[in-house]
Amino acid sequence: MKRTITHLADGRELIYFDRRDDADRSAIDRRTLDPRPVASELRYDPLTEEWIAMAGHRQTRTFLPPADECPLCPSSDTRASEIPAYDYDVVVFENRFPSFSGNFGTYEDVGGLSKVRPGVGRCEVVCFTSEHNSSFSKLSDDQVGLVMEAWADRTAELSAIEGVEQVFCFENRGEEIGITLPHPHGQIYAYPYVTPRTKLHLGAASRHPDLFADVLATERAAGTRVVAANELWTAFVPAAARWPFEVHVYPHRRVPDLAALSEEERAAFAPLYTSVLRALDGLFGVPMPYISAWHQAPVREGRDLAYLHLELFSIRRAPGKLKYLAGSESAMGAFVNDVMPEEAARMLRSQVDH
Amino acid sequence: MKRTITHLADGRELIYFDRRDDADRSAIDRRTLDPRPVASELRYDPLTEEWIAMAGHRQTRTFLPPADECPLCPSSDTRASEIPAYDYDVVVFENRFPSFSGNFGTYEDVGGLSKVRPGVGRCEVVCFTSEHNSSFSKLSDDQVGLVMEAWADRTAELSAIEGVEQVFCFENRGEEIGITLPHPHGQIYAYPYVTPRTKLHLGAASRHPDLFADVLATERAAGTRVVAANELWTAFVPAAARWPFEVHVYPHRRVPDLAALSEEERAAFAPLYTSVLRALDGLFGVPMPYISAWHQAPVREGRDLAYLHLELFSIRRAPGKLKYLAGSESAMGAFVNDVMPEEAARMLRSQVDH
Repeated sequence: MKRTITHLADGRELIYFDRRDDADRSAIDRRTLDPRPVASELRYDPLTEEWIAMAGHRQTRTFLPPADECPLCPSSDTRASEIPAYDYDVVVFENRFPSFSGNFGTYEDVGGLSKVRPGVGRCEVVCFTSEHNSSFSKLSDDQVGLVMEAWADRTAELSAIEGVEQVFCFENRGEEIGITLPHPHGQIYAYPYVTPRTKLHLGAASRHPDLFADVLATERAAGTRVVAANELWTAFVPAAARWPFEVHVYPHRRVPDLAALSEEERAAFAPLYTSVLRALDGLFGVPMPYISAWHQAPVREGRDLAYLHLELFSIRRAPGKLKYLAGSESAMGAFVNDVMPEEAARMLRSQVDH
Repeated sequence: MKRTITHLADGRELIYFDRRDDADRSAIDRRTLDPRPVASELRYDPLTEEWIAMAGHRQTRTFLPPADECPLCPSSDTRASEIPAYDYDVVVFENRFPSFSGNFGTYEDVGGLSKVRPGVGRCEVVCFTSEHNSSFSKLSDDQVGLVMEAWADRTAELSAIEGVEQVFCFENRGEEIGITLPHPHGQIYAYPYVTPRTKLHLGAASRHPDLFADVLATERAAGTRVVAANELWTAFVPAAARWPFEVHVYPHRRVPDLAALSEEERAAFAPLYTSVLRALDGLFGVPMPYISAWHQAPVREGRDLAYLHLELFSIRRAPGKLKYLAGSESAMGAFVNDVMPEEAARMLRSQVDH
């Protein structure tokens, strides 16, 4: 694997992850780009004691461009995309419209009870493949392995940035959940705070010894919600799933983050995960919208309590029907799930390749 | 005001709230209805320490029927809807596809670490008007007053049901957020637990004396985010808004719930709130999807800490563009807002009727 760091015309970092050690990464970004926007402003919500990022500049971000203007495809003789090279294996670059960055301005007191501070951090885009019409579910095991190397690398690198408290690797897939670029890609958010969901996880883990290992062991013992498993990983629908189709994927060994996975664990993840993604797409015979979220230990807090795992979920509850987060979920955080977890697991199991 | 309790063919309660004391409410539901489904199953998520409701039966609920089959319009000579009468002012009835109810079955251990218990409680539908093509924003002050009487009545009644811990009155509006019936209506959920959002509010209020009053006072003092106000209520965009257009409406006097509002407070709410709703619709010249959520004190816990207020928010961030809850929000609970609160307030203020 060869890792090459370059810079785009506006100074953003772009990193190639190549399978071949002789890949030529000398291409230069010849575009004229606007200066990078300043970082968002973090505001403290006194009612929930959570930080909210205000990123006004993101209103103008690229929105569903035609395929021949895709900024995530390689460049060509006639068109310069975000990636100067004419081909790539996996590439990571700083988001042009970041929610968090190191490029912050000044922030004034806004009144109310809200404290304000700069949205320090970093947002990156991960292109999973140069093939515009592919999807993560279609990647070869080898290609998934390269993506995992990129995730591990970025997790380690971003964790070292001053002010970053948590690194979150994720994929949003499908127009139904609002993706603005269909090219297969994920994102990485390096947050300047521990996210609310992770705080809940760490709180629960502090009250229940070996919480995640216990969840994994009891799910494997029950078996009714296991979707797929191999020697090193198990994928199951959680007993208290929030979403119509939700699958959690745990390594059998507790590690804090992607950087800590062994080579064998990375290799074993690829076929299991892509088979679950294909099962998801097989449910209704249409590409499913989904969010796939790596839950990693924060950079400092609770590293001994956290347990790396992936939470994958779709908002599609039936052909032509989506699960919306309406009043109960969006306003009160109280989830109502229309699909029984055991039924979701049975449906997914029947779709997993044999 | 006349309040008449009747029952539908499957035993569900239906309550008319009439302006006229001589309203005839003798009409009988002559439909043949399936037996009512059993209540959902509550499952405890050990990772977040929250309850999730599993309501498999809701998969078959009525989904965007044609206007002449609207179940929320009054009945007619040729068609029987959910409301047996040929006209009504405001009517409330038990949801045919409830997330919570008193009609529960038996629940088995499901393995994993998840505790299971019945989804005790009640879900009601509130028809704001018999006019199918109206909307809350178009209701007369008088009609809003009647809706508020219904909300107050239901809050008191549902709070008295054994096992109910919190009563939540809300409106989901717009297909963009997943409403399945366009007739102007709201819902009431009587939960068998204190919702996650309310737990956060109460936790924060326990650490900050007079939290809500302080938020209101500092927002009124700052003024930059105030959208509208009168002697008894203030509507403002919170400094740390999560949603592109979010307005909180506070009474100037702390009360725990809708039942505790004075007659003057109810009367003063109507014109203020409907002017904010019209301002929201005026922003982009299209009916805005929104969620409008009354935050009331739970039935038992933290009644001295809570402060009745309404939180209204829209997912529309621009014409043709919605705010989706993708990876950061849905998986991590970490919100990024693309519209600055002061700008949202300015835009809304410019639309408020003078």
